[in-house]
Amino acid sequence: MTPDPALVSELRSALGADAVLVSAEACTPFECDALNTQRRRPDIVALPRSPEQVMAVLNACRRHATPVVARGAGTGLSGGALPVAGGVLLVMSRLDQIIEIDPARRIARVQPGVTNLEISQAAAPFGLYYAPDPSSQVACTIGGNVAENSGGVHCLKHGLTVHNLLEIRVATIDGEWLTLGSASGEAPGLALLPLFTGSEGMLGVTVEATVQLKPLPERVELVLAAFGDVRRCADAVGRIIATGIVPAGLEMMDAPAIRAAEAFVHCGYPTDAAALLLCELDGLNHDVQRELDAVQALLHDCGATSLRVATGAAERLRMWSGRKSAFPAVGRLAPDYFCMDGTIPRRHLAGVLERIGEMSRAAGLPVANVFHAGDGNLHPLILFDAGQPGEVERAEYLGAEILELCVAVGGTVTGEHGVGVEKLGPMCTQFGADELEAFHALKRAFDPDGLLNPGKAIPTLARCADYGAMRVHGGKLPFSHLPRF
Amino acid sequence: MTPDPALVSELRSALGADAVLVSAEACTPFECDALNTQRRRPDIVALPRSPEQVMAVLNACRRHATPVVARGAGTGLSGGALPVAGGVLLVMSRLDQIIEIDPARRIARVQPGVTNLEISQAAAPFGLYYAPDPSSQVACTIGGNVAENSGGVHCLKHGLTVHNLLEIRVATIDGEWLTLGSASGEAPGLALLPLFTGSEGMLGVTVEATVQLKPLPERVELVLAAFGDVRRCADAVGRIIATGIVPAGLEMMDAPAIRAAEAFVHCGYPTDAAALLLCELDGLNHDVQRELDAVQALLHDCGATSLRVATGAAERLRMWSGRKSAFPAVGRLAPDYFCMDGTIPRRHLAGVLERIGEMSRAAGLPVANVFHAGDGNLHPLILFDAGQPGEVERAEYLGAEILELCVAVGGTVTGEHGVGVEKLGPMCTQFGADELEAFHALKRAFDPDGLLNPGKAIPTLARCADYGAMRVHGGKLPFSHLPRF
Repeated sequence: MTPDPALVSELRSALGADAVLVSAEACTPFECDALNTQRRRPDIVALPRSPEQVMAVLNACRRHATPVVARGAGTGLSGGALPVAGGVLLVMSRLDQIIEIDPARRIARVQPGVTNLEISQAAAPFGLYYAPDPSSQVACTIGGNVAENSGGVHCLKHGLTVHNLLEIRVATIDGEWLTLGSASGEAPGLALLPLFTGSEGMLGVTVEATVQLKPLPERVELVLAAFGDVRRCADAVGRIIATGIVPAGLEMMDAPAIRAAEAFVHCGYPTDAAALLLCELDGLNHDVQRELDAVQALLHDCGATSLRVATGAAERLRMWSGRKSAFPAVGRLAPDYFCMDGTIPRRHLAGVLERIGEMSRAAGLPVANVFHAGDGNLHPLILFDAGQPGEVERAEYLGAEILELCVAVGGTVTGEHGVGVEKLGPMCTQFGADELEAFHALKRAFDPDGLLNPGKAIPTLARCADYGAMRVHGGKLPFSHLPRF
Repeated sequence: MTPDPALVSELRSALGADAVLVSAEACTPFECDALNTQRRRPDIVALPRSPEQVMAVLNACRRHATPVVARGAGTGLSGGALPVAGGVLLVMSRLDQIIEIDPARRIARVQPGVTNLEISQAAAPFGLYYAPDPSSQVACTIGGNVAENSGGVHCLKHGLTVHNLLEIRVATIDGEWLTLGSASGEAPGLALLPLFTGSEGMLGVTVEATVQLKPLPERVELVLAAFGDVRRCADAVGRIIATGIVPAGLEMMDAPAIRAAEAFVHCGYPTDAAALLLCELDGLNHDVQRELDAVQALLHDCGATSLRVATGAAERLRMWSGRKSAFPAVGRLAPDYFCMDGTIPRRHLAGVLERIGEMSRAAGLPVANVFHAGDGNLHPLILFDAGQPGEVERAEYLGAEILELCVAVGGTVTGEHGVGVEKLGPMCTQFGADELEAFHALKRAFDPDGLLNPGKAIPTLARCADYGAMRVHGGKLPFSHLPRF
């Protein structure tokens, strides 16, 4: 769509000509985020340099009734930064200042375009770090982390973004400034901070975030355990948690994921294993020793075929490198893949993984599993070739089936990647009409004209009716017939 | 006001005649909660026995455009259950069933009228308990705990209600059923569970709650330290937290509170101390030993004049009894008292306590302090005699001054008692017009006609204008002139 010249001129006078892009050539790099199966070129890209300029963009969009979508680094996996309705893409990357690190209060105050890793780097001289660490932490920015409530391999012990966020300053589409939460962690009134966290840019735009820093742990240990079958490995996860030990990370990979990672980064994984578990322990020296002893004894008891403790930081990083590069590693096995993000109660891990294996064989599409086992947050990677007729649809169908299985056992359709455009259909499975209507009512309270990131996260009831019809048309078994564990 | 006969008849046919009270005699016991300085008799008291009956009451109130206020056990300290606009008081005490204790998943599913303590009692045979423990835990109910996001002496380590709550089922004034959160702890979509928690009955009525249970700690130790002056005691609080140890509870009392508690329950407190600290440690046997050694050494180093470790469960309960009965104990010192509930950053503890002492002397009204020092959650108790002309107003003025001091040093006007009717004025100090308008917009999204607990928690902008004028009239210094620490 040709951009509205009056809007362009208004934006240029507020931001400067170089901060407003309109040509197809300049806008094309922003046509998708990391969910690159869906693309839509924005009509206008705005690159503000300050909170005031962000507000100027929102005010201009409101006056011109033009949709506006905030975007951080574009590493999102569910299409949250895709401008599905066109309009203005509000790119926050130039708000990239670390405003303050206060080691006494253990807080960092930053602009939204600061990367996740930069916060930890700036805090490191004080012996502190920012705990949530999505795999994309070198690139992803804190504004996007807030919008998606990002997790990472360490959120089992250290929490999601919402658990490490103290205060945000938000610009609304109505032209208001809101300060939500407080740097001291206490906040009376309605709890708007957790509401905005993970709201996928639909309620307002974060222009500043104050996060909690944690002391770097005195000691870190990483155990790698291999198993001859998936069920034993899954059972070990439940047994570790049942001891009361909370590992910093507890990650599981199945055979296809292990082999792909090993072939890609040569991290020393046992390629004959059916499953492996990475268990990281952190804390005070002597708590970690006790936990390490207990975990090793337990893994042995669970039938681990091999057990290795990283001998130092270098080996630990190498052992993690396979896990951290598992998505691109698996991506080399086929022209395309979808990454699912369902969660399930931990006790269903073994059963659900077996059922996914059956579904994969029935669909004729390989699935690799590499995931946050401690949280029950699955990431099945469905491999396919979009060049083969009908294969995209088969892969989407298998993905929906997997997410419905997650819901059927008491889990959810997304753990940490957000809903975006990707999971609008599965959200109809997760929620009833009353809950969806409550979400829409909230959205209207902050964005009555529906201009902020429209078409995301909350399906309309009409869309759910279509989704239901599609599932029936696809010959899907009714929900109640899904296997129970 | 005479109750609407059509409404009464509708309620009686839905709930049964014995579950709908209208006589002055029957309704008078419900005219206030634990904030007994403010009273308003409800026009109708409804006592439903099931979630469906709760919904019937809400539907009837909506049809008759009648305000409705949910009430648990009436132990709230801020007037949250006061029917300020008359109408129906929806008393939840007959929904008192523990639906399920699942020791494997460590959850309890209960109706809202179950008391806080009953959950722990039911979980005890499985070695589990429900962690949040308001002082009123023997009487207060979980529905009220959710509405007020209740804390207690152990929330420093174990969190507020919101941190221990997994799922609630809510009836809305629009006649919808919402399931918020999930028993597995994962929940996609907008974060409505934390939003509803602490929303003081203004967004919906909880008819069922699923809470997390924790394993009973292997070992518990309680240290009592006395100090010759308040500043040393306050400094010890900051130094304990700075070690990285998170006590299960870290409570402070000043001289008036110590003496009142000792005279009331004879718990063995040192009545010559200027301040005392109760530090409880819980966890695994050998972590507790290490923490106990560290805390004792540190308290000694901070100048504690005496140090005692409870020798067993009986002495521990006795040492806690003084703290737990401190409010009624202080209440014996004067005909009336107000309990404030401000929070401050811990580093300001000593300075703020000294300043409160000065304010108390200037106002000619004694103040006793007994509070959650580890959280920086103050509970100054202002003593006065409502029978003396002007004394209520002087006490209210002093209270407002104390809360403004809390906000001025970066704290808040309420930590755990809620806003209710009590802190509507101070909320105008805490928030700007934009934030208050955002709260109102949210409220309208769930309750467009303003029937659910009207007149609570969120001041209107008109009320804030009045409050500002009253403060100026009272000769109050502008905020920027308050002392900085």
